[in-house]
Amino acid sequence: MRRKLAFQGERGAFSEEAATKLLGKDIELVPCPTFEETFDHTEAGKTEFSLVPIENSLAGSVHENYDLLLQKSLRIVGEVNLRVVHNLIGVRRAPLDGIKKVYSHPVALAQCQAVLKRLSHVEQIPAYDTAGSVKMIVERQLGDSAAIASKSAAEFYGAEILAEGIEDNKENYTRFFLLSKGEPIHQNASKTSIVVALPHQPGSLFKALSVFALRDLSLTKIESRPIHGRPWEYFFYIDFLGSAEEKQCKNALRHLEEIAEFVKILGSYPRASD
Amino acid sequence: MRRKLAFQGERGAFSEEAATKLLGKDIELVPCPTFEETFDHTEAGKTEFSLVPIENSLAGSVHENYDLLLQKSLRIVGEVNLRVVHNLIGVRRAPLDGIKKVYSHPVALAQCQAVLKRLSHVEQIPAYDTAGSVKMIVERQLGDSAAIASKSAAEFYGAEILAEGIEDNKENYTRFFLLSKGEPIHQNASKTSIVVALPHQPGSLFKALSVFALRDLSLTKIESRPIHGRPWEYFFYIDFLGSAEEKQCKNALRHLEEIAEFVKILGSYPRASD
Repeated sequence: MRRKLAFQGERGAFSEEAATKLLGKDIELVPCPTFEETFDHTEAGKTEFSLVPIENSLAGSVHENYDLLLQKSLRIVGEVNLRVVHNLIGVRRAPLDGIKKVYSHPVALAQCQAVLKRLSHVEQIPAYDTAGSVKMIVERQLGDSAAIASKSAAEFYGAEILAEGIEDNKENYTRFFLLSKGEPIHQNASKTSIVVALPHQPGSLFKALSVFALRDLSLTKIESRPIHGRPWEYFFYIDFLGSAEEKQCKNALRHLEEIAEFVKILGSYPRASD
Repeated sequence: MRRKLAFQGERGAFSEEAATKLLGKDIELVPCPTFEETFDHTEAGKTEFSLVPIENSLAGSVHENYDLLLQKSLRIVGEVNLRVVHNLIGVRRAPLDGIKKVYSHPVALAQCQAVLKRLSHVEQIPAYDTAGSVKMIVERQLGDSAAIASKSAAEFYGAEILAEGIEDNKENYTRFFLLSKGEPIHQNASKTSIVVALPHQPGSLFKALSVFALRDLSLTKIESRPIHGRPWEYFFYIDFLGSAEEKQCKNALRHLEEIAEFVKILGSYPRASD
């Protein structure tokens, strides 16, 4: 039986490309309308894995997924970085100069402004997601419309790529987390993600970071999110190199528990190779 | 002549309430369609001030404004926190049980789910902004529609409050920055905002925070944003207590310049009183 993986969006989404890069083609993909439902599928045991985007190298963090990592009980078991290539996609034989409307997710539209501005008189219409926009124009056979999405969305819906690689900035990567419920820590785990709440005292973040610095453990990311009900106080999400099963990291986490009000280990996993 | 202030949104926006709280009623308000245009108005000298939201105590940071603070040349000269009270607003004499559609900014809709779920069969429609939704239903006299917005939006457009204080969580505050081009540092400045880029080395964030910790300067916020063209490297936006003209802070900033690749002082300003 093939392993099932839940992701947000329609078939052909960038999450699907990321899942294939990480786990190969032999998985059953379960599209979900929202990120929360993507988490819930695996929590309820309907899928073995969920895959969600956590940050884009241009647009920044996907904060909803940071919040869900704290609220839900899934563990991070893998990480993958995907180079985001945007394409202008139309129905078969649609002429590029006949395109009057371009549909896509607002972030994708924002990342392709140079090409969109060259197509004169094109209306940009924000949509639910990238692959869903391709699905919609193919289903309705809209010859005057195009979508911005991945190559795999064009292939999946039998649409045509009118212009390839139209993103303004080529240093466009999205980082995804693979989540599961019961999976044990991978023996090659080399990165750990945690979330902490600190006492509201001067120097508390500095003290918290000292537990890593004093052990030469490298931080790769820190992200802050508001604590509901405590205005202007924050949860800190920290990624560092090392597995929570290594002695150095165990010591750092034990030390951190002396300082923090709350520590949750979100998972240790093999670091993405690129 | 009254001083001019640019803000994003339509008249009656929460930014307008915040501006009045900070500067009183004797200002000329200039609504702008986007945050970038709000910055540009003051950069071009068309307005003396711009006022922009920077974070909400539930939804988190307004990242677009963090990015604009780095790109543009305006200085932060003031700060104000506004308690966000959401109201369900309809045209005059609209019966609550006749409401079929509710328009507002997606964040406002998300913050009023308890009340919206009690109104059965109501369709939630995301809109450009809160006050703009009130303006639209009044202009079109939509008796089957309501908007979620501030009390001042209801007053400004002559609309009726159908239900008051409908936000799920009362600990709902938005923090705004007052920006100007030439204004000198206020003599009562007690808080400073900076943005730094650090060398991509282990321990560099810890070293950067040490310049504050070693001088007992309190951090109130740290926010990270991606550096374009350098995937998985970040700008850090740091707020700390003290004015950039005080000796302790000057020493800390000089020390920080030894460590950081880049430091920009965004401004020193009187801390919001609540």
